[in-house]
Amino acid sequence: MVSWNNLDTLKSYQKMEEKKEQVDLKEVLSGDAGAQRVKEYCVPMAEGLAYNFAAKKVNADILEELAALAEEAQLADKFAELYNGAVINTGEKRLVLHHLTRGQLGEAVTADGTDKREFYVKQQERIAAFANKVHAGEIVNGAGEPFTTVVQIGIGGSDLGPRAMYLALENWARANGTLKMEAKFISNVDPDDAALVLNTTDIAHAIFVLVSKSGTTLETLTNESFVKDALEKAGLNPANHMIAVTSETSPLAKNSGYLDAFFMDDYIGGRYSSTSAVGGAVLSLAFGPDVFARFLNGAAESDKLAANKDLMKNPAMLDALIGVYERNILGYPATAVLPYSQALSRFPAHLQQADMESNGKSVNRFGEPVNYVTGPLLFGEPGTNGQHSFYQLLHQGTDIVPLQFIGFLDSQWGKDVVIQGSTSQKKLCANVVAQIIAFACGKEDENNNKFFAGGRPSSIIIGKQLTPESLGALLAHYENKIMFQGFVWNLNSFDQEGVQLGKVLAKRVLAHETDGALKAFSDLFEI
Amino acid sequence: MVSWNNLDTLKSYQKMEEKKEQVDLKEVLSGDAGAQRVKEYCVPMAEGLAYNFAAKKVNADILEELAALAEEAQLADKFAELYNGAVINTGEKRLVLHHLTRGQLGEAVTADGTDKREFYVKQQERIAAFANKVHAGEIVNGAGEPFTTVVQIGIGGSDLGPRAMYLALENWARANGTLKMEAKFISNVDPDDAALVLNTTDIAHAIFVLVSKSGTTLETLTNESFVKDALEKAGLNPANHMIAVTSETSPLAKNSGYLDAFFMDDYIGGRYSSTSAVGGAVLSLAFGPDVFARFLNGAAESDKLAANKDLMKNPAMLDALIGVYERNILGYPATAVLPYSQALSRFPAHLQQADMESNGKSVNRFGEPVNYVTGPLLFGEPGTNGQHSFYQLLHQGTDIVPLQFIGFLDSQWGKDVVIQGSTSQKKLCANVVAQIIAFACGKEDENNNKFFAGGRPSSIIIGKQLTPESLGALLAHYENKIMFQGFVWNLNSFDQEGVQLGKVLAKRVLAHETDGALKAFSDLFEI
Repeated sequence: MVSWNNLDTLKSYQKMEEKKEQVDLKEVLSGDAGAQRVKEYCVPMAEGLAYNFAAKKVNADILEELAALAEEAQLADKFAELYNGAVINTGEKRLVLHHLTRGQLGEAVTADGTDKREFYVKQQERIAAFANKVHAGEIVNGAGEPFTTVVQIGIGGSDLGPRAMYLALENWARANGTLKMEAKFISNVDPDDAALVLNTTDIAHAIFVLVSKSGTTLETLTNESFVKDALEKAGLNPANHMIAVTSETSPLAKNSGYLDAFFMDDYIGGRYSSTSAVGGAVLSLAFGPDVFARFLNGAAESDKLAANKDLMKNPAMLDALIGVYERNILGYPATAVLPYSQALSRFPAHLQQADMESNGKSVNRFGEPVNYVTGPLLFGEPGTNGQHSFYQLLHQGTDIVPLQFIGFLDSQWGKDVVIQGSTSQKKLCANVVAQIIAFACGKEDENNNKFFAGGRPSSIIIGKQLTPESLGALLAHYENKIMFQGFVWNLNSFDQEGVQLGKVLAKRVLAHETDGALKAFSDLFEI
Repeated sequence: MVSWNNLDTLKSYQKMEEKKEQVDLKEVLSGDAGAQRVKEYCVPMAEGLAYNFAAKKVNADILEELAALAEEAQLADKFAELYNGAVINTGEKRLVLHHLTRGQLGEAVTADGTDKREFYVKQQERIAAFANKVHAGEIVNGAGEPFTTVVQIGIGGSDLGPRAMYLALENWARANGTLKMEAKFISNVDPDDAALVLNTTDIAHAIFVLVSKSGTTLETLTNESFVKDALEKAGLNPANHMIAVTSETSPLAKNSGYLDAFFMDDYIGGRYSSTSAVGGAVLSLAFGPDVFARFLNGAAESDKLAANKDLMKNPAMLDALIGVYERNILGYPATAVLPYSQALSRFPAHLQQADMESNGKSVNRFGEPVNYVTGPLLFGEPGTNGQHSFYQLLHQGTDIVPLQFIGFLDSQWGKDVVIQGSTSQKKLCANVVAQIIAFACGKEDENNNKFFAGGRPSSIIIGKQLTPESLGALLAHYENKIMFQGFVWNLNSFDQEGVQLGKVLAKRVLAHETDGALKAFSDLFEI
């Protein structure tokens, strides 16, 4: 049995807090010892990726303490509870099953009278069959013509994850000739979002994926109406153009208004749903079911590593603990995710959701306030773009922001140009390498304007190429990292009560049931 | 004469620091007094916008202290120095002239033997004439066919600002029938960025805008080669497809490899260049010169307000000082910009650059270290999307993040659907109103999971619609806010020495002039 305790009650944590040991990055990265450290402070990840933490403020002592913390907090045991079907989402009294979409790590898990692994696999098979028929021209529009574009209608987890994954593989798919359909996304209740997508899409040849677990999400249903309206005005029958991803009990299931419906359940939160039918439908239509399956395989390999009890063989757990060390011991309030890959342009936005929505909480899993800081702010943009932008503050600002770099040896497209003796891809890699050292070691200068204090920690995940497999591995790595941090902080990472109050008040505003400041603000918007 | 002093030497600041007065938002926003506050704590901005700070932690006392600080720090006088042509960028010994691209606020400014207002206007006229010829089919491709797409090649300020402005007006232009050409952007040195844009663009009918002040920016020249290579492989002559935006002395000026060249100078930094030729070329080609002129007019109106000495009639200065109060007195390390407008999807990314690159510094304008925190972290995504994502942490996380909302009464597209008794636009507005109150006032609940502490401050900029004029006003508001904050912190907001070290080290990596950890990391990337 595992026991759930607050971080500040753990002996291993108290010990670290007392010591507050500081590692001088410039010192540990200097000379031959520094080169050796770069080779040694590196843990293999799934699918050929590696997590290098040589430029993080840890040493052998601290790593030992973190291993003790991992053990005392029973992180591996808690993950085992989770994948064996315990009610980890205590607030909503639910199992947490996103790992089951990509593999069976432990015992069979039954819920709602069904083996859940079988349930997820069945949905994948149904989606694959549907997508194959669309690609083969067996499912066509009202005029008998093939569909060329898929448009996802969803918000939050039904949008950010699938969108980030699509963008991550679009160029790879074009390079490999497996782009079956272009994908687009409508999310915001702002009517300008849907209007712009519809105005730039050949809707006669578009298939729309409506994603709503309950079938009642206001933004999503509003956008569905917007789309149906546009289809009807174009003389098209919406029922020929829409599928639903929803729960089996929702009004969208078994509904003649949709070509078909694929099912999700209560055990996978929106932000963890890229590997469920929520990501599966749009990604299988865009890239083909085989590519989606490869993506799932990559995620499954990461999950296997995350089940490892040995911290130094569990990169997600290690990444998580170094993050906790930076947040709670070193006191840094934010984290930047900086992929040196344009394909990962929206990956930081997805992680921003996954991380901040999971661990941005002030009460523990039993609803008791905690006395320590929890999830950090998370933001990021791809390098090298960020270098010409907010890196100024990261290098020379008054606060230190720990960094998470991601880089690949090869581009997705493969074709490249040589300028000044190197390809673009080599320049990209040279830049990320340079940044690690610049942040960590800084530079002395008599001119204070050109002085870099250094001491700014970073890690880097290095891969050969961003492929369906390595993308799946990367995604699952971060999901598992967030899960482990939630365990350490003793949070329920799988509910999101903080989004409810705004919904309630917005309904009140629309119903004109307001007074005081709420009414005064409503008046400013003429509501 | 103005005098430049560190913030902590100012009496008005010391007084505030001693008092550290705390405003209880729930209290001040309750009842009729709260409604009254919402009406009163509102300052008109240019072009019908308004800055409402009723949900910020200020009161009459604090506003008086901030006014005293504005006076003691001579903010209005410093802005006058700037627009009258003083060497405000002390590090690089340069004037700071982006305001001159949209109007003449003060005396004539002469530099390099030229009246600079005349210089900027002349470039606008040259761009307008060029764009009009392209739109009229007088400037055509090698086959005599019209251009349909414009592709900007630039990075940092040459990318984020113009891209954010294009996205902000694309839907408006479609709704108003003034979209002349679609615009795309290539920025990252990652070859996958250029490859994807080129693979999804009809390059035979595309005109490329190469933006590089020096004509030597590595990323940009690399991407130009990539593009030229693609044009040549398609049997097209690059010289028929490219224009340059560069300095008059750069190798790209008067170069037969370009259809034409339009000029920028050393007095406008990249992050302030959206209203210069850097934004002018691509936006005039995309929307027509008249729309770009309207955008400049909106910015000019904001600049006039920023010249006002009275804090309560100068929304940029007020916004700046409230930000300083939150950063230095209340100790909040970050700011989120949350536009309830999908058109502003990349506006936060642009502000992230403008703000963090300007004020993310640890030394004052004389190169002396300062003893107080300066520019905060800045991030953001459009609402309502963010509500389903990172708002969880903003509502219930352990840290407080001050918020800057932006909202409009009307959508750009105008067409809308009514669901459950309200349009999408009304729902959008109802959501932002609800969020202000939810963050400020919170909610009691016996269940701690559903408890919202409140006390989370926000401001909101409210407008009728996002148009060229109001976008210009919005952009200039934030530029001026950043400038005033730089004055308060006594920083040089107009250089960016923090981006240099990475460049130097990247060159060393590419030249294989590395040892120790830098070599070890290079080895991991097989460089």
